[in-house]
Amino acid sequence: MSDSNALDGLTQALRKLPGVGAKSAARMAFHLLQHDKPGALQIARALEHAVGSVKHCALCNTLTEQDICSTCANPQRDRSQLCVVETPADQAALERTQAYRGLYFVLMGKLSPLDGVGPNDIGLQILFDRVVPRNERGEPLPAESREVQEVILATNFTAEGEATAHVIAQALKSRGVQVTRLARGVPVGSELEYVDLGTIAHALVDRR
Amino acid sequence: MSDSNALDGLTQALRKLPGVGAKSAARMAFHLLQHDKPGALQIARALEHAVGSVKHCALCNTLTEQDICSTCANPQRDRSQLCVVETPADQAALERTQAYRGLYFVLMGKLSPLDGVGPNDIGLQILFDRVVPRNERGEPLPAESREVQEVILATNFTAEGEATAHVIAQALKSRGVQVTRLARGVPVGSELEYVDLGTIAHALVDRR
Ligand SMILES: [Zn+2]
Ligand SMILES: [Zn+2]
Repeated sequence: MSDSNALDGLTQALRKLPGVGAKSAARMAFHLLQHDKPGALQIARALEHAVGSVKHCALCNTLTEQDICSTCANPQRDRSQLCVVETPADQAALERTQAYRGLYFVLMGKLSPLDGVGPNDIGLQILFDRVVPRNERGEPLPAESREVQEVILATNFTAEGEATAHVIAQALKSRGVQVTRLARGVPVGSELEYVDLGTIAHALVDRR
Repeated sequence: MSDSNALDGLTQALRKLPGVGAKSAARMAFHLLQHDKPGALQIARALEHAVGSVKHCALCNTLTEQDICSTCANPQRDRSQLCVVETPADQAALERTQAYRGLYFVLMGKLSPLDGVGPNDIGLQILFDRVVPRNERGEPLPAESREVQEVILATNFTAEGEATAHVIAQALKSRGVQVTRLARGVPVGSELEYVDLGTIAHALVDRR
């Protein structure tokens, strides 16, 4: 379309960004090359650095550069509570309330059968093994011997988030785990990341 | 905000993209690292390649990897007509009509006093020197000796595009150049890049 294969290639590549169509990608490429080449190189280096260094926390599944993320490694956190969220952004929203001192499990997604996202894609088995570990003989530990005493479901209050919470609740309750859900102080249909701190804090206290 | 400096750095860097705020940048970073690391590396490589290889055409000022772009170098184009556009995307929109066989000058912007964009920032002097060259004694060539016989102003029909066209028209007319403007078949207030081909073709024929 333009006179430059490199420009066209950049426009094509920028369409990999979620929510960016052909026109937006062309404008972004033009802006960077015409007005902000240092910014373009900064993005390139940040992408390469992040791809090379970011991995999943072995305990909570969030994105981190360590084997165990700083939250999971923090001895001050209450290890008997485990809060299940969809994304690191949701976890960050909960952390900003300063109303929760337990640990997290980050699904890095949500059940979405229409998009082909099933239980294994969001690490549900890892979550179940974390909450109900097995002894050397492969038997599930009895409730009183488990570290996690309560699982708080903080998936979004969207249709898919509710369905995800439902599936997790069913599975964990059948294994004798106490499962609670953030109270519906969070407006139905909204996404956690965009909710004000007070509402989230209230919903944490009122969890059911 | 997250547990990863690399993730936060990527989110910060993505805010360099026009129209991308903090929330969008965080979602883009999360999406790339969780779901599309190959896409992330593709964007990084495309940025580096484009920054390293894309420059301005010495004749028309558009983005290209050559010293002279393929349009300017094309011996089949009518060198007596010069069409002035704001961006390569606008030029591409005109090319798609197949209604114009002359050459282009790409401003790579528009006059925008409120944003501090003045005549020198959009290469107006380069345009004037192109249209009215000087002889060895530094005198402007007389009209009959000039290669460019007509300048067609095809800046956008926005307030800033109209003002840019007005400034160019005034300057060139005072130098004895025939200056025309795309006909107002193009809806007032719209941007060329988004106009349908037929309207642009019609406006080319009806230029005034
Ligand atoms: Zn962790
Ligand atoms: Zn050129």
